[in-house]
Amino acid sequence: MILFNNDYSEGAHPAILKKLEEINFEQNTGYGMDKYSEEARNHIRRVCSSPDMDVHFIAGGTLTNLIVVSSALRPHEGVISANTGHINVHETGAIENTGHKVLVIDSEDGKIKPAMVEKMCQAHYEDGDREHTVKPGMVYISNPTELGTIYLKRELEELREVCNKYNLYLFLDGARLGYGLCAEENDLTMADIASLCDVFYIGGTKVGALFGEAVCITNTNLKKEFRYLIKQKGALLAKGWIMGIMFLVLFEDSLYFKIADNAVKMAMRIKEAFNNKGIDFYCDSPTNQQFPILDNLQYDKLKEKYLFSYIAKIDDNRHVVRFCTSFATRPENVYMLVRDIEKL
Amino acid sequence: MILFNNDYSEGAHPAILKKLEEINFEQNTGYGMDKYSEEARNHIRRVCSSPDMDVHFIAGGTLTNLIVVSSALRPHEGVISANTGHINVHETGAIENTGHKVLVIDSEDGKIKPAMVEKMCQAHYEDGDREHTVKPGMVYISNPTELGTIYLKRELEELREVCNKYNLYLFLDGARLGYGLCAEENDLTMADIASLCDVFYIGGTKVGALFGEAVCITNTNLKKEFRYLIKQKGALLAKGWIMGIMFLVLFEDSLYFKIADNAVKMAMRIKEAFNNKGIDFYCDSPTNQQFPILDNLQYDKLKEKYLFSYIAKIDDNRHVVRFCTSFATRPENVYMLVRDIEKL
Amino acid sequence: MILFNNDYSEGAHPAILKKLEEINFEQNTGYGMDKYSEEARNHIRRVCSSPDMDVHFIAGGTLTNLIVVSSALRPHEGVISANTGHINVHETGAIENTGHKVLVIDSEDGKIKPAMVEKMCQAHYEDGDREHTVKPGMVYISNPTELGTIYLKRELEELREVCNKYNLYLFLDGARLGYGLCAEENDLTMADIASLCDVFYIGGTKVGALFGEAVCITNTNLKKEFRYLIKQKGALLAKGWIMGIMFLVLFEDSLYFKIADNAVKMAMRIKEAFNNKGIDFYCDSPTNQQFPILDNLQYDKLKEKYLFSYIAKIDDNRHVVRFCTSFATRPENVYMLVRDIEKL
Amino acid sequence: MILFNNDYSEGAHPAILKKLEEINFEQNTGYGMDKYSEEARNHIRRVCSSPDMDVHFIAGGTLTNLIVVSSALRPHEGVISANTGHINVHETGAIENTGHKVLVIDSEDGKIKPAMVEKMCQAHYEDGDREHTVKPGMVYISNPTELGTIYLKRELEELREVCNKYNLYLFLDGARLGYGLCAEENDLTMADIASLCDVFYIGGTKVGALFGEAVCITNTNLKKEFRYLIKQKGALLAKGWIMGIMFLVLFEDSLYFKIADNAVKMAMRIKEAFNNKGIDFYCDSPTNQQFPILDNLQYDKLKEKYLFSYIAKIDDNRHVVRFCTSFATRPENVYMLVRDIEKL
Repeated sequence: MILFNNDYSEGAHPAILKKLEEINFEQNTGYGMDKYSEEARNHIRRVCSSPDMDVHFIAGGTLTNLIVVSSALRPHEGVISANTGHINVHETGAIENTGHKVLVIDSEDGKIKPAMVEKMCQAHYEDGDREHTVKPGMVYISNPTELGTIYLKRELEELREVCNKYNLYLFLDGARLGYGLCAEENDLTMADIASLCDVFYIGGTKVGALFGEAVCITNTNLKKEFRYLIKQKGALLAKGWIMGIMFLVLFEDSLYFKIADNAVKMAMRIKEAFNNKGIDFYCDSPTNQQFPILDNLQYDKLKEKYLFSYIAKIDDNRHVVRFCTSFATRPENVYMLVRDIEKL
Repeated sequence: MILFNNDYSEGAHPAILKKLEEINFEQNTGYGMDKYSEEARNHIRRVCSSPDMDVHFIAGGTLTNLIVVSSALRPHEGVISANTGHINVHETGAIENTGHKVLVIDSEDGKIKPAMVEKMCQAHYEDGDREHTVKPGMVYISNPTELGTIYLKRELEELREVCNKYNLYLFLDGARLGYGLCAEENDLTMADIASLCDVFYIGGTKVGALFGEAVCITNTNLKKEFRYLIKQKGALLAKGWIMGIMFLVLFEDSLYFKIADNAVKMAMRIKEAFNNKGIDFYCDSPTNQQFPILDNLQYDKLKEKYLFSYIAKIDDNRHVVRFCTSFATRPENVYMLVRDIEKL
Repeated sequence: MILFNNDYSEGAHPAILKKLEEINFEQNTGYGMDKYSEEARNHIRRVCSSPDMDVHFIAGGTLTNLIVVSSALRPHEGVISANTGHINVHETGAIENTGHKVLVIDSEDGKIKPAMVEKMCQAHYEDGDREHTVKPGMVYISNPTELGTIYLKRELEELREVCNKYNLYLFLDGARLGYGLCAEENDLTMADIASLCDVFYIGGTKVGALFGEAVCITNTNLKKEFRYLIKQKGALLAKGWIMGIMFLVLFEDSLYFKIADNAVKMAMRIKEAFNNKGIDFYCDSPTNQQFPILDNLQYDKLKEKYLFSYIAKIDDNRHVVRFCTSFATRPENVYMLVRDIEKL
Repeated sequence: MILFNNDYSEGAHPAILKKLEEINFEQNTGYGMDKYSEEARNHIRRVCSSPDMDVHFIAGGTLTNLIVVSSALRPHEGVISANTGHINVHETGAIENTGHKVLVIDSEDGKIKPAMVEKMCQAHYEDGDREHTVKPGMVYISNPTELGTIYLKRELEELREVCNKYNLYLFLDGARLGYGLCAEENDLTMADIASLCDVFYIGGTKVGALFGEAVCITNTNLKKEFRYLIKQKGALLAKGWIMGIMFLVLFEDSLYFKIADNAVKMAMRIKEAFNNKGIDFYCDSPTNQQFPILDNLQYDKLKEKYLFSYIAKIDDNRHVVRFCTSFATRPENVYMLVRDIEKL
C-alpha cells in the first residue's frame, strides 16, 4: 500500500537526522535558549525581513493554535474562523477548552473574505445587546487552507484592513506554508506575511521536520511574556535545540522551499492526471493537497493500491477524497499513480 | 412608553414581596439550607412527581446553564444546541468559557429534532478521526424556545430516545417554562419533563420572581456534589432563603401557573390582533413571546407608544420584532395595544 | 437559639424592602441600565470622590472575586492572597477554576504586609527560570480581613507602593467594608480606598442588602468591556435595578454607615464582655467579627443558647470561635449575651 | 564548561537515532497508531506485568501532568501535591490553568506521607462548610522526587491505602523513574508501581530519549476516551511513531535500566566525593540528582569549570546546589569533578 493520505507519514529530511546525530553529545542549554535555536531564529527573521520579530518553536499545530489564541484574547473575545478551519473542526475543541468561542464563517473554498469579517463585526457593533455576545478579537486563517487553496497578496492586504478597522488580530496558520508559497499562482512572500499578520507560524511537521512549528510574532502586544504561556501549556520542550536544529537545517540554505517546491510539482502531476481524465475537483488547489471527486468505480480501483483520505460523500456515486504529497513523496510512486489514473 | 420588549421589566408578584417582608428579621440558615428552601423544594418535587429529584436555586439563567453544562461534561465533550439557543448566542460565550464547545444545529423554529441529533452523532461515531473532534455529550433545548415555540410530548420522548442511543444527557432550559406549559396546544406536564430530562430548570426571573431558577436534577450521575459546583461558580447565594421563599410562594398554591396562564392569554389577544390585521409571524408561537413581521409604517407607528424588541431585518420594508407579556402585564395596556394594531 | 454565627442571617434593611415594593410595578430597563442603578452609582462615586470611577453591581462576593481577578490577569499571572484569604480557602477554588493560581502568603492576622509582597516578587524576578513559575499579577486583600482586622491608611499606601514597583493590580475585597470603616481605630475613607486601589468592592450582602456587591473600578485598564465579562460569568442580573435600588437606599443618605456603625458598637460590647472575663482573643478585631478563645466549659455553656461559628481547635481545652453582629442584630440579644458571658 | 546542571543537556541514546534513521522513509500511520508504538506499548505492559494497561506517549512532563490531572478530576476537585512538587512550583500554573487547585502539603524531603493526606482529607470531610472548599480528588507524587528521594514499597502501599479510604486517584510522575528504580535502596518494581497507582508515567526526556513520556493508565475509569483529551491539549503528535520508536529502543532490551543504572552509579561517586570532603547535603538522595551544601569558596571554585543548578540560599555562606548525571554523562567528566571536589 502506497500512502498519499497525508503529508506526515514519513520522518524528516535526512539532513536533519544527520545534524541531530552530529551534535548528539554536545551539551546544550535547555528550553530553546541554545545557540542552534538562536541561529534558526535569525535565519527565519532574515527570510521574513523582520529583524525584530519574535520566533518560538512549538511541537505541533494544535498546541501552537491554542497557545497563540489564548495568549492574545481576553476571556470574552472569540476568534473568527472559516467553518472548515482546523481550530473549528479538527482540534477536539482545543480553543474552546482555553475558554474562547470560535466564531464561524461559512466559506466554500476554505478562505475568509474581508466582507465576511466586515459583516460579522458590523452585526456585533450594531447590536445594542452586544455585551451578551462574544466580541470578535482575532481572525484565524490558514494558508494554504484545509482545502489547499491559497491567499493572494491583495486578499491578505484587504483582510489586514478589515482587521485594522475592527481592532482584530490577524493570525495565519502556516502548517503547510511552504507548499502555499511554492504554488505557481502564489504572489506572497514570507516578508509579506510577516508584515501583514500579527502572528503566524511556519509549519515544520508537514514540511520536512520530525515535528515543530516556528511561531513568528510581529505585533509587540503579543510578544510580551509569551514563553510563560508556552510553558504553562506544556509546550516548552526541555531539549528545545532539537527544534532549533531542524529549523536551522531547513532555513539556513532554503531547503524548506526546495522541499515544498518539489512536493507541489508532484501534486501538480497528479492534478493534471485527474484533469486529463475529466475528473472534477472539490476545489481548485494549487498546492500539495488535491481533492478529486471520484465515482464508486474509480474509488474502488485506486483504493486497491493507494491510501488516500476520505473527505465527504456528495451522493451515492460521488466521493470527495484527498491525495497529498510531501517532502518524502517518491517520484516513482507519483508516476505509478498517474499511470493508474490514466487507466481508470 | 409602554414596555412589551421583554418579560423581566417589573419586580415580583406582590405575594412574594409580602412574604419577604414578613420574615425579614427571622434568622435563617445560609446558603439554601433553610426551611423555606426545603419547603419550596418539596413543592417542586410534588409538582414534578419526582420525590427523589434534587432541586437547587440559582440566581439567573446564564449562571444556571454554565453550571449545569460544565458539571456534566468531561473536557472533550460538547453540548448540542440549536443555532438560536441562548447558550449559543446570548451568553457571551459562557459555555465555551467553561471549556466546552457548543455544537450547533441549524433550526428554523428554535427546536431540535431527533433526526438532527442522530445525524450529528452518527457523523461523529463514523469518523475514524473522531478523537480529533468534540464528542457530543449533552443536548440542550429550551422550552419554550427563543422563538416561543414548544415541544410536544411525543417530540420530547423521541429526543430522549436518541439521547439514550448516543449516551447524551438531555438538559431543558425552562427560563420561560410556565409560559410553555400554559400554551393551548401544550401536552407536556412538569412530571413528563422530569421523567424525560436528566436535568432541567424552572424559570423564576421571567415568571413572577425577582430572580432565580429552580434547577431540577433527576439523573443520579448529575446530582453528585452539585453544591460544590454552584459555590465554585459563585452562585451559592448567602441569603439563599430569598429564592426559597420566592419559589415557595410560586409553587405552594399553583401561583406559578396562574401567572403564566394569564400572560399567555394576553399574548394570544395580541397575536389575534396581528392575525386579524393580516400581519404574518416569523414563527407560530403559542406562548408569551410573539414575533410579528411589521412593515416600515407599522413599525414606526407602534414604536411611538410601545417598546418592543427588534429581532431581525427581512428586507428594507419588513422587520421581525418581538412583543412579550409577563406576570405583570396590565390588561388595559394589552387592550390599548390591540386597538392600536387594529388601527394600523 | 439566637444566631451570632454570621452577618447574613437576616433579610435587608426595611427601607430597602419598602422601596422595592413601591416601585414593584414600574417598568425598568434590564441588566443594570436603569435609572436607579445610575443614581446609586452616582452616590457611590460621590462618597468615593471618584467621579470617573466605573461601578457595577454583582450578586455575591465569590462571583465578584472571580470576575475581577479573571478579567484583570493574563493566563500565566496569579493573584497574591493571604493564606486566610476568602479566595484561597472559601470559594471552592473559584479563582483556579478561571485558570489562575492563588499565590499564598502566610499571615498571622489576615493582613498582607508590603514586605511579604516584595519578597515574593523579588524571588520571582531574580529567578532565571521564572518563566516556569506563575507571574504575580495582582494583590488581593480584604478589609476587614477574614479575621476582623483592618488596614490603616499608611499600610494601604505602602501596599500601593510595592504594587507600583512590581506592576501589580491592587484589589480590595470589601464584603464587610462598612464594618471596617466604622472601626474606632480606622483612619481610611472610601475616597482613600478609591485612590489607592485599582479595583475594590463595597459589600451589600453583609451590610444591610438582600444581596449584592458594588464593584468600583478606578484603573482605566480594568474598566474596558467589563460588562461583557460580568455577562460571561452569568452575573448580569436581568432585573438589575433591584441591586440599584438597594445601593441607592444604602448610599443616598449614609444609611450604609449608620448600619455598620451600630453593628460595630454592639460587637464592641461583646468584646468588652469577653475581655472583662479575662477571655483571650485569637486576634484583636475592631470590627463586627470577634474571635474569642473559649475553654470547653465556656464553649458548652454558650452553645446552649447561641449559635456561633467554630473556627479552630487550639488544644483539647481551647477553641477559637466567632461571634458576628450585623445590621439586624438586636440590642436585647447582645445584652443577654453580655450577661451570659459575665456569668461564665 | 562541563554541564552537570540537569539531566536533559544532551540528545538521545545513539541506538535511538540509529533506529530513527533506519525507518525514516517508511510510511507510518499517524498519531501513535503505528506498529512501533504498539510494540513499545507491549514491551512496557510486559515490564509492568500489566497486560491491560493503557499506554500513551506524550512529549513532555508538564504536558503529561496537565492532561492526566484535568482528565481525571471534576471541576471542584483538586490535586494534592508536596510544596516542592513540579506541578506546584515549576509549571507556570499549568494545573490551575486547567481549572484545578493544587492542594499543597509541606514536605521536607519532597515525599508525601500518608498521615499528611489523612489529615488534609479528614479536615475536609469534618468541615460542615466543605462545599465552600476544594475537594481532594487525586494525590500527585513524583518518584524520585524533586529532591532526589524515593518511595519505598511500604510507603507507596500506605499511600494507596489512604487513597482508597478517601477515594483519591494516585498519580505518580516518573519523569526520572529509571533513576529511582536503579537506586541501591530501592525496593519498588515497575510492576509494583503499576499495581499501586491509578496512573503513572515513565520519563523518556530525562532518561535517554530526545523527548517523550509513556503515560500508563491502570484504572479503567481513567482510560476512557483519553486520546480525545491528549488531542484537545495539543499533545497528539502527528508523527507519533517517533516516540514509539524511542520507547521501543529503550524497553525492548532493558536499555532504559542500563542507562539509568549507569547514571546513578556516577552520581554515587560524586556523592561519595562530597561526603568524603565532609560536605553536607540538603537531603539524602540515592538517585541521579545530588544536593550538596557548598560554602562560598567551594561554590566559586567549582563554578569555574562546571555548570550546576542553584537551588536555595541557606545563609550568606551556605548554598544548596544540584549536580545531575544522565544517560550521557561521561565518566571522565565525573572523574575530573571528583578530583576537583577532593581538592576543595
